[in-house]
Amino acid sequence: MRRDRLARLREKMAAEELGAFIVLDLLSVRWLSGFAGSNGACVVTPSEEILFTDGRYRIQAGEECPGWELRISGEPLAAQIGAFLAERGAVRAGFEPDVMTCEQLELIRTAAPETVLEGRKGMVSEMRAVKDLEELELIRRAACITDRAYREIIGHLRPGVSERDVAIELAYVLGKAGAERESFPSIVASGPRSALPHARPTERPLRVGEPVLLDFGGIAEGYAADITRTVFLGEPVAELARVYGVVLTAQEAALEAIRPGVSGRDVDGVARRVITEAGYGDCFGHGLGHMLGLDVHDGPALSLRSSVVLQEGMVVTVEPGIYLDGVGGVRIEDDVVVTADGCEVLTASPKDLLVLEG
Amino acid sequence: MRRDRLARLREKMAAEELGAFIVLDLLSVRWLSGFAGSNGACVVTPSEEILFTDGRYRIQAGEECPGWELRISGEPLAAQIGAFLAERGAVRAGFEPDVMTCEQLELIRTAAPETVLEGRKGMVSEMRAVKDLEELELIRRAACITDRAYREIIGHLRPGVSERDVAIELAYVLGKAGAERESFPSIVASGPRSALPHARPTERPLRVGEPVLLDFGGIAEGYAADITRTVFLGEPVAELARVYGVVLTAQEAALEAIRPGVSGRDVDGVARRVITEAGYGDCFGHGLGHMLGLDVHDGPALSLRSSVVLQEGMVVTVEPGIYLDGVGGVRIEDDVVVTADGCEVLTASPKDLLVLEG
Repeated sequence: MRRDRLARLREKMAAEELGAFIVLDLLSVRWLSGFAGSNGACVVTPSEEILFTDGRYRIQAGEECPGWELRISGEPLAAQIGAFLAERGAVRAGFEPDVMTCEQLELIRTAAPETVLEGRKGMVSEMRAVKDLEELELIRRAACITDRAYREIIGHLRPGVSERDVAIELAYVLGKAGAERESFPSIVASGPRSALPHARPTERPLRVGEPVLLDFGGIAEGYAADITRTVFLGEPVAELARVYGVVLTAQEAALEAIRPGVSGRDVDGVARRVITEAGYGDCFGHGLGHMLGLDVHDGPALSLRSSVVLQEGMVVTVEPGIYLDGVGGVRIEDDVVVTADGCEVLTASPKDLLVLEG
Repeated sequence: MRRDRLARLREKMAAEELGAFIVLDLLSVRWLSGFAGSNGACVVTPSEEILFTDGRYRIQAGEECPGWELRISGEPLAAQIGAFLAERGAVRAGFEPDVMTCEQLELIRTAAPETVLEGRKGMVSEMRAVKDLEELELIRRAACITDRAYREIIGHLRPGVSERDVAIELAYVLGKAGAERESFPSIVASGPRSALPHARPTERPLRVGEPVLLDFGGIAEGYAADITRTVFLGEPVAELARVYGVVLTAQEAALEAIRPGVSGRDVDGVARRVITEAGYGDCFGHGLGHMLGLDVHDGPALSLRSSVVLQEGMVVTVEPGIYLDGVGGVRIEDDVVVTADGCEVLTASPKDLLVLEG
């Protein structure tokens, strides 16, 4: 699969008449070369593929990047890349301007004054948006691990247990279920704190009659899953029960709307309309979802401002929410892959309103 | 403490005749404003401090950044900043060129064509290098949590347990010891894999007679600790026992050498000399240590190429290692704060060669 990715990048380079492409985004580096270390960059030319890294990764890079030329140095990556491009003389080299820093651009320009540097935003990241079979298999595995962890964690939700304790257990059950690591620090938010869409877990104990919002996911060989469920310890107050129904309806309507050719903006609009018509339009302050892949936020996807048009093989999250200041919030999130005529939901955890015994 | 940091930044801005400073590094944003979300940026002017973020963080930003003006929008941060600077008219605005991307620079230039943008590398990150008392207290707490986790994890090291199992337990005991999260994904490398300085844990089971290298740390309110210990399951082979002694001698010599005014290069050289004289100069392929703070790699510090001169209040890791391809590796790492006349070691876990029953 990796040779195929490289071949496709070279096709795009040929179409754009680029003699080299500089890849600095670590996730794109991994996607292209297999290198999973914390310091590396690639340059691809029509006939060469070079990985730049430092001495700590000499052995690992050799194992992970068969067929790649390795250049190992303690110099900054951009300086190494500049020196390489200078060897090649006057060449048009593409780079992703949303990744390269101003300093890196300057380092490359200084080292390789003859190189013509051309910003090409999204050149690799857009290729990454459509997943191949190998990638889908890994995301499926990550989703399966995440579902297993959800089943496990439900048993730990009891009055008096702190949000932090739940988060610690979540990391543990994700690991035991096979996750390489957490996709991101878990959100465990109870009571009014569930109205903070990105709350961090605190020492606050779970209490009867309150929502518990769990947003978490596991990683399998670099690929992330991301799920949110909101459950209740004892019967919820009437408004939150109503809100739960609205969010679930909005999420299911959005899932129905997903298919190739539909815009991310339109899918967001489908969920937003349900929520707005129920009177909570101002309480859904984030986009409907994001791409998923080697990172949990692998690019924009479904939002008011999104220019993404869905394609078969894209993997996105669908996660509407309603947040009531001082009361609580409900968010329901699944991961889906866009199929030829709709979408397949990868996360399989139940979504009916769950009331745990208090 | 945060008002004091802001005052010092304004002093530096005045000295450089800057009417605004743009802070895009999320850790610098947190250090300056208190904002701990995943999408935010600051602009500081002589009389204003503004935090830019999106709707997900409205409530959190209000809680975390008392006294700051909040600007909430779904637009890219750089576009928001550009619009703000345009309101201010012609002003000299500084930014950190090693953080700002080429695209962000372009967005700001387009939105605020009258603003004069001036790269000032390290303007905030250099201030962050010297820790104040509040920060030292948090790093001490992180180190204490990390030591506690080390004591716990020792009991889990048995033949047959996989590296991955150990890593999962490590995350759990770190959490239970009070860590907000892991400073970074733990390294648990056994046998020949311990020769990979940045190995990821695998399903490989621990075996008698082999080294187990553990490199991990916990975070307390954002501040990281980072420790490495190498222990043996059963008696080590003679060469690794010898190597252990060399690494420990090198580490202790480096600790002795640390004091204000000494360069990072010289401290690295002290450890490197011990290792080279023992005949392992080629087997120590990384720098001696790095800064520690709101991130586990909070800037360069001790290496062959370092231009850092140590100052009282800097916190650095000291972590020499010797890696023998196909045999195994030994690394020993502590965290230290530079004091008026030397350094204080913050991590207190024992360093004598530890042979666990196989």
